Amino acid sequence: MVASIDFNSDMGESYGLYRYGEDEQILPYITSINLACGFHGGDPGVMRKTVELAKKKGLGIGAHPGLPDILGFGRRYIEVAPQDLYDYVLYQIGALSGFMKHAGLNLSHVKPHGAIYMMVLDHEDLSKALCQAIYDFDSSLPIYTIAGSVTEKVAEDIGLSVVPEYFADRPYTEKGVKMFGWTRDEIGSPEDIAGRVLEVVRSGSVTGLGGVKVPIHAQTICVHSDTPNSAQIVRTINETLTNTGIELKAPHNLVRQ
Amino acid sequence: MVASIDFNSDMGESYGLYRYGEDEQILPYITSINLACGFHGGDPGVMRKTVELAKKKGLGIGAHPGLPDILGFGRRYIEVAPQDLYDYVLYQIGALSGFMKHAGLNLSHVKPHGAIYMMVLDHEDLSKALCQAIYDFDSSLPIYTIAGSVTEKVAEDIGLSVVPEYFADRPYTEKGVKMFGWTRDEIGSPEDIAGRVLEVVRSGSVTGLGGVKVPIHAQTICVHSDTPNSAQIVRTINETLTNTGIELKAPHNLVRQ
Amino acid sequence: MVASIDFNSDMGESYGLYRYGEDEQILPYITSINLACGFHGGDPGVMRKTVELAKKKGLGIGAHPGLPDILGFGRRYIEVAPQDLYDYVLYQIGALSGFMKHAGLNLSHVKPHGAIYMMVLDHEDLSKALCQAIYDFDSSLPIYTIAGSVTEKVAEDIGLSVVPEYFADRPYTEKGVKMFGWTRDEIGSPEDIAGRVLEVVRSGSVTGLGGVKVPIHAQTICVHSDTPNSAQIVRTINETLTNTGIELKAPHNLVRQ
Amino acid sequence: MVASIDFNSDMGESYGLYRYGEDEQILPYITSINLACGFHGGDPGVMRKTVELAKKKGLGIGAHPGLPDILGFGRRYIEVAPQDLYDYVLYQIGALSGFMKHAGLNLSHVKPHGAIYMMVLDHEDLSKALCQAIYDFDSSLPIYTIAGSVTEKVAEDIGLSVVPEYFADRPYTEKGVKMFGWTRDEIGSPEDIAGRVLEVVRSGSVTGLGGVKVPIHAQTICVHSDTPNSAQIVRTINETLTNTGIELKAPHNLVRQ
Repeated sequence: MVASIDFNSDMGESYGLYRYGEDEQILPYITSINLACGFHGGDPGVMRKTVELAKKKGLGIGAHPGLPDILGFGRRYIEVAPQDLYDYVLYQIGALSGFMKHAGLNLSHVKPHGAIYMMVLDHEDLSKALCQAIYDFDSSLPIYTIAGSVTEKVAEDIGLSVVPEYFADRPYTEKGVKMFGWTRDEIGSPEDIAGRVLEVVRSGSVTGLGGVKVPIHAQTICVHSDTPNSAQIVRTINETLTNTGIELKAPHNLVRQ
Repeated sequence: MVASIDFNSDMGESYGLYRYGEDEQILPYITSINLACGFHGGDPGVMRKTVELAKKKGLGIGAHPGLPDILGFGRRYIEVAPQDLYDYVLYQIGALSGFMKHAGLNLSHVKPHGAIYMMVLDHEDLSKALCQAIYDFDSSLPIYTIAGSVTEKVAEDIGLSVVPEYFADRPYTEKGVKMFGWTRDEIGSPEDIAGRVLEVVRSGSVTGLGGVKVPIHAQTICVHSDTPNSAQIVRTINETLTNTGIELKAPHNLVRQ
Repeated sequence: MVASIDFNSDMGESYGLYRYGEDEQILPYITSINLACGFHGGDPGVMRKTVELAKKKGLGIGAHPGLPDILGFGRRYIEVAPQDLYDYVLYQIGALSGFMKHAGLNLSHVKPHGAIYMMVLDHEDLSKALCQAIYDFDSSLPIYTIAGSVTEKVAEDIGLSVVPEYFADRPYTEKGVKMFGWTRDEIGSPEDIAGRVLEVVRSGSVTGLGGVKVPIHAQTICVHSDTPNSAQIVRTINETLTNTGIELKAPHNLVRQ
Repeated sequence: MVASIDFNSDMGESYGLYRYGEDEQILPYITSINLACGFHGGDPGVMRKTVELAKKKGLGIGAHPGLPDILGFGRRYIEVAPQDLYDYVLYQIGALSGFMKHAGLNLSHVKPHGAIYMMVLDHEDLSKALCQAIYDFDSSLPIYTIAGSVTEKVAEDIGLSVVPEYFADRPYTEKGVKMFGWTRDEIGSPEDIAGRVLEVVRSGSVTGLGGVKVPIHAQTICVHSDTPNSAQIVRTINETLTNTGIELKAPHNLVRQ
C-alpha cells in the first residue's frame, strides 16, 4: 500500500467564449492539473487564469499538449510524423512556460492529451518524439503515462521520470483501460469509483469488467473534468483517500524530492 | 557616429507547405532575426528549423509575436484588450523559448510584429501590456521599437532595455516612418538604401521625402524579408557598412555586455 | 399597431465539443433563426443539425455571417476591406446554402453577426459590400438591420428588402440601442422586456433609459440566445404577444408573400 | 481512341499572403479546374478571384473540398466519421457556390482533395458520405475519381456521374497510381508525360514502372499545379493532344450534354 498519491485532472480547456469542464468545482479536490496549451483547447487567457487558480490552491501544474485541432478537441487521430509531434509538443510546453514565469512557478510534469496520449502508447518513434521534446525542454519533468506501455519504456531510456497513471473514471479489462466506448454502468457511482481507487492504492490491482483482477501500478489517479458528474466523483475520491490516511500530493512532491 | 550596429530581419514566416520570404538568402548578411511564433505566420516546424539556421550563423534570435490571424498575416488591426495582448505575447515568447532550449540558446530580444508594432506605438495601455509580458518572461530581454514612441517610454519605465530601430526599406517624413503606402521610387535602389543607412549611422539623421532631414536614433537597422529585392538590399547594406568600418553585431552583444 | 411580427434569435453557435447557447429551449418560442456559418462560431455539423431542428419547427432560417475569428466569437472589430467583407459574407451564405439543400429548404434572410452588424451600420462602403454579397447570392433575401442606419439605406438602394429589427434584450437611449456595456437592471425582468416589446408593436416606440421615448420601426424582434435567462425571456415575449393577438411569423411570410 | 477529353488541375490553393501553385501559367492549357474551398487551402478572396480567372478562360469549375487542416494542406489523414465528411464536403461545395453565383456560372464537377481523395477510394462508408453530399447539393454534378475504385461504384449506386481520372504526373504500377513517394525519374520529361497521356487516350492503357501495361479508363487527365515544372508539363500535354486531333473539353461538355 502506498502512503501518498497524486490526483490529477485536465483543466483549462475552455476557448474564447466557450466554457468547458467544471474547473472550479474540481480544483479543491485534486493535487495536480494538466493544462491545455491552445492546440486542442485552451487559449492564452484561459491558460493564464488557470495557472493563477492552480497557484492559489498550491497544485502541481503540468503541460497537456494536444494535436492542433480545436474542432476535434485533439481527440481524433491525425497523421503526424515524429518530427511534427516533437515540434508540436515543444511549442506547447514552451507556451505554457510563459505563464509559469508570470506566476513565478515551475512546471511539475507533462501529460499528453487525447489522441497523442493514445497513439504513442504502442508506437516507439512517436513516444521518442514526445519524450525527447519533454527532455529537451526540462529533463527533470516527469511524464504521466500508463505503466507497461512503450511510452514508459522510451521515457525511461531517454532519462525521464515516469508517473504511472490510473484512470479512475474508466473501466478496465485484461487489456487495460477502456478509454472510449465505455458506459456509465461500467464505471458506476462515485462511491464505486472511489472504492476502486482505494483498491488500486491498497493492492496494486483493480477489479475490472466481469470481475477480472487487473494489475495497476499507479502514482497518480486521473478523473477527466468532462466525465459526467466529475465534481462529485473527485470529491468522493478525495474524501475516501483522505479518510483512509492516504496523503494526496502533487507529483513534484512525489517524484522530485 | 556609432562604431557598431545590429541588422535585423523578420524570418520564419512560412506556414505548412506555404513558403514566405527569402530567409536563406538574407541570413548571411544580418546579425539578428525576429522569428515568427505561429500566430501571424510560422509554425512549430518552421520555428525549429529557423532557430537551427540562425544558430549556425551565430545570429541573435528574437521573438516576433503577432496577432492571432494567419489569414491577415498579423498585419490588420484587431480590437484586443491590453490583457489579451499581454497573454498573446507571453504565449508566443514562451513557445519560441521551447525551440531555444532545443538549440541550447537564449533569446536575444523581442520585436512585435505588424499590427502589434504599430498599434502600441502611441497607445500607453497596449504598450504596457506588451512590455510587461516581455519583462515577466525575462526582464533582461530588450525590445526593438521606435525611438521617441510611447512604447519606448513605457518600456524604460518598466525596466526593459530598448533597441531603437531604423527601417531601411521605408521612406521617412517629418512624422517619422511611412510604414504603409510607400512606393519603390520613394525608397530607391539598394545603393540608395545603403547610403541612407550610412547617413543614419554617421549623422543620426536621414534624408526623408522631399529632402527633409529626420533625426533618427538607431541601434538596429531593419529590412523586411518580403520587401521586393530584399536579398540584394541586405547584401548591399552589409557591404556598405562593413567597408566603412562599422561593425555589425547582434543586440545581445550591443546591449547586454 | 402591427398584426404580425417575426421573432428571431442567433442559433447554432456551438463549435466542436463546445456547447453555446440554449438553442433547444429557445426554438419553440421564436419564428426565425440566424444561423452561424463557421467563421465566428458554428461548424459544419452544428449547421446541419441546427437546420434540421429549425426545419422541424417550421422556422425561417437565415445566414448569420461573422468575421473569421472563433477565438473572439466575431465580436471584436477586425480591419477588413470592403472586398474582404464581400468575400467573407458570400462564402458563408454559400456554405449554409449547402445545408439548406440537404433539408430541401430556401434561406429566409441574412443577419450579419456581432462586429459586422455594428461596423456596417454607419459605414457606406462596408454596407455596400455586405448588401451586394447578399444580393449576388439571392436578390430576394431580406437583410435584418436597424431602421434608419446607413445599412438600411444602402440595402434599399441595391434592391434588398429590409426587415428592421428591435433588440428586446438591450436598453435603448436617444441614440438608439445600447448594444454593449448594459446592465441587467437596465433591461429588467422577462415581463419588463415583454412589456417593452408590446409597446414597440403597439406604438412604434419604446421607453428607453431615463424614460425617454425612442421611435422604433420593427418587423422583427431579437433576443440573443446568450443573454442570461434567454429561454424564459423568449417564452414570456412569445406568450405576451400571442395573448394580445399578435401573430408571430417568419420573415418569408412577412416580406415575401 | 477517344475523340475528346477533359484536362484538369488543382487551383486556388493560395491562402492570405501565401502564394501557392503556378495558376496563371497553367490555366491557358487546361479545360477544368478543381478549386480549393478554404479547408486545406484557398480563402474567400482567392476563391472569388480564381472563379473570375477561370470564367475568362471558359473553364469548367469544380469544387475541391479538403480536410480542415491548413497546416497540413489537407494531405494528412485525419480520423473523420462519415457524417463529419458529409458535413465538411457539403459546407465547402456550398461555399464555392456563392462565388459561382457571383460569376453567374454553375459548378461543373467535384473532385475531392488530398487525403479525402485517397481515403475514400477503398472505404465504402466514407465514399457514401462524400457522394451523398455531392448528390444532395446537386445530383447532376459528376465526381472525378479513379475507375474501379469503391468510390466509383458508390457514386454510380447513388446516381452520380463519374469522370474517371488519369494522373499524368504520377507513375503507375500494377496496383494503380503511385500517388506518394514517386521520383522525378519515374515520371520523366514533359514529353515522356505527354507521350503516356497519348497512350492512355489511344489505347486505354499506360506503360507503368518496369514496363508493365496498366489498363486506364479516363475521361479526364490531371496534372497537379505543384508538381515541379507543372506549367511546361501542361503545355506539352495540351499541344500533344491538340496536334493529334484530340479535343480538350471541360466535363460539363463531356458528360452533361
